[in-house]
Amino acid sequence: MKPVLAPAPTPAHEADHPTSPVVRFGPEAPLALDCGLSLGPLSVAYQTYGTLNADRSNAVLICHALTGDQHVANVHPVTGKPGWWEIMVGPGKPIDTDRFFVICSNVVGGCMGTTGPASSRPGGGAYALDFPVVTIRDMVRAQAMLVDHLGIDSLFCVAGGSMGGMQVLQWAASYPGRVFSAMPLATAAKHSAQNIAFHEVGRQAIMADPDWRAGRYLEEGSRPEKGLAVARMAAHITYLSEPALHRKFGRNLQDRDAPTFSFEADFEIESYLRYQGRSFVERFDANSYLYLTRAMDYFDLAEEHGGVLARAFRGSKTRFCVVSFTSDWLFPTADSRAIVHALNASGASVSFVEIQTDKGHDAFLLDIPEMFDTTRGFINAAARARGLPPAQGAGA
Amino acid sequence: MKPVLAPAPTPAHEADHPTSPVVRFGPEAPLALDCGLSLGPLSVAYQTYGTLNADRSNAVLICHALTGDQHVANVHPVTGKPGWWEIMVGPGKPIDTDRFFVICSNVVGGCMGTTGPASSRPGGGAYALDFPVVTIRDMVRAQAMLVDHLGIDSLFCVAGGSMGGMQVLQWAASYPGRVFSAMPLATAAKHSAQNIAFHEVGRQAIMADPDWRAGRYLEEGSRPEKGLAVARMAAHITYLSEPALHRKFGRNLQDRDAPTFSFEADFEIESYLRYQGRSFVERFDANSYLYLTRAMDYFDLAEEHGGVLARAFRGSKTRFCVVSFTSDWLFPTADSRAIVHALNASGASVSFVEIQTDKGHDAFLLDIPEMFDTTRGFINAAARARGLPPAQGAGA
Repeated sequence: MKPVLAPAPTPAHEADHPTSPVVRFGPEAPLALDCGLSLGPLSVAYQTYGTLNADRSNAVLICHALTGDQHVANVHPVTGKPGWWEIMVGPGKPIDTDRFFVICSNVVGGCMGTTGPASSRPGGGAYALDFPVVTIRDMVRAQAMLVDHLGIDSLFCVAGGSMGGMQVLQWAASYPGRVFSAMPLATAAKHSAQNIAFHEVGRQAIMADPDWRAGRYLEEGSRPEKGLAVARMAAHITYLSEPALHRKFGRNLQDRDAPTFSFEADFEIESYLRYQGRSFVERFDANSYLYLTRAMDYFDLAEEHGGVLARAFRGSKTRFCVVSFTSDWLFPTADSRAIVHALNASGASVSFVEIQTDKGHDAFLLDIPEMFDTTRGFINAAARARGLPPAQGAGA
Repeated sequence: MKPVLAPAPTPAHEADHPTSPVVRFGPEAPLALDCGLSLGPLSVAYQTYGTLNADRSNAVLICHALTGDQHVANVHPVTGKPGWWEIMVGPGKPIDTDRFFVICSNVVGGCMGTTGPASSRPGGGAYALDFPVVTIRDMVRAQAMLVDHLGIDSLFCVAGGSMGGMQVLQWAASYPGRVFSAMPLATAAKHSAQNIAFHEVGRQAIMADPDWRAGRYLEEGSRPEKGLAVARMAAHITYLSEPALHRKFGRNLQDRDAPTFSFEADFEIESYLRYQGRSFVERFDANSYLYLTRAMDYFDLAEEHGGVLARAFRGSKTRFCVVSFTSDWLFPTADSRAIVHALNASGASVSFVEIQTDKGHDAFLLDIPEMFDTTRGFINAAARARGLPPAQGAGA
């Protein structure tokens, strides 16, 4: 029953090349999934930052978004770029690693070391489409196993945006006693029809690529790079906003004075999108993309509570900070308001901020001072309520 | 120099299977294109409805959108469905074929009988990517050749939505003396960065399909159906609105009570989108899709007027009726307002209506009573100003 800490298991496929510590849960304690199947053995790859205090009360769990991973605040081992939330997490940052013990794990179904469709299955060979369809709740269950393994009963805070925000809401609903505070950003309690539609386009683009080979591309030595790039391009548009695209690119031509009257990337926006597609396929697994988009599509937190979202938070003692962004059309403010209304109806403690920005859905990843002020204020107040010492240099 | 009326030329590829009358312009009078090349021979396939009056003053030119064609108000010969604007064009309709002689031609670059990339080129074999990149202005030039051929000097009205609206604006700018009234609906004077981005995703989806064969699929006996279907699915989302998708589909499951935990079309919206993709490939040519999206991307009417849109309409005597729809996020009202501001600045006669609807960009094709009232009122007033007799049964 005791998990085995396996920092460097024998790699077989990309999901088996962890660049992080990995906890391996043996097949005798499998993860029970919403689909009715169970998954074991299960590897969970994660990163931690900062130090767990003596009474284990300062742990912050960060939940990553669709194409994110556990590399929140360190240089990414594949891309060489900064961690995806270094702007939020680090020494002196709103989620201050001088004060908090920060954990982030790659989600189940992912491709950065946690078990997913590219992982080797017990009999050998990658799971591919034999990997079970997982849900946001399954991701959270796996995170809870990791948190248990780390000896932490109650998390000081669970935070994340987009798909990460869905996990935050699920944590608060599934484990109310273990979540002291929660920050769901740029997210929704259920995935909208339009968002399912965009995901379906991406999946169809991947599956249309003959190099996808009915999902068995790893064994057959191919990679559905073109299909995955198209999926990423379509999705990337939805992460931005029309005003920001207009401001950044407009109708500017790319390194030319006149259109070429061809299908070359005449416009900067075309060149930018093609780059987004190309660079994505270098770091992401196509089948993982299928599974994680599916998990988001299936997410509807009210469903397990008779369709009444407020019941998901009934009696909750968690302090919530909900944040949305004015130009986010993927998870618009209305989605956040629905969460806030449910929290109010359930009597929970909630603060809500809609932040003015033209940066679209991706704003939660970007340098938005109002977001930092909001989260810093919320976290400091929660830390005081938790009895944690103030930030160094700060007054009592 | 005289064009040859060729109702049934020898078919070679799908663009050579006209289901409409076709005017064939010989190679001695080619269409001069913006790219610097010229196109000849040139076939223009078209439909007409109603009767041209004695002084040839009652002609209405309809311009079709990206995936439309000349079959405005008759059963479509491929799909068997009603014409795409039967709701607007016909006996007693706002564009009343009892009063007006209505013309609609397939655009240059299209695939319903007018010369396009699927047409046979003079040496034999389909043009494929050797077809020149055409512009909205080139489309309008070809329409002007048709209108000349039909012996019409001045059009009573030019009307169309989306890409059709771009042609309307170009007609008014290129041939101000030939356009008595103009109805650009749900359109823009230039294509936005976000719209270029969505088009680029569609093109990349087509080009990623190995059955596209660098554009030579017709000769090689293949069809990039999967790529074209993905392009259509992505585009189709942009034609609708989030509220309408929520209202029509929400998170409803398709013929099942519970999710299948698979990549099947569990949700109605997925099933609907897949159907849209499948049915589109039956009637549309993939290379045409590349060329027509490119023409829209290149459209920026102000560009040929030193970047000042008002100059495009300087001294115009045309009466304009600009219509936008509140939930159209592809060609939002701001785009129509920019047109109206330019028309006001140029001293043109313009009425502008923003119509409240949740039906998104496709609203201009749908049963929206306020749109019919607006267009009927505009057309009747213009007809009076033109000295045309009133509708039968209507008072003077």
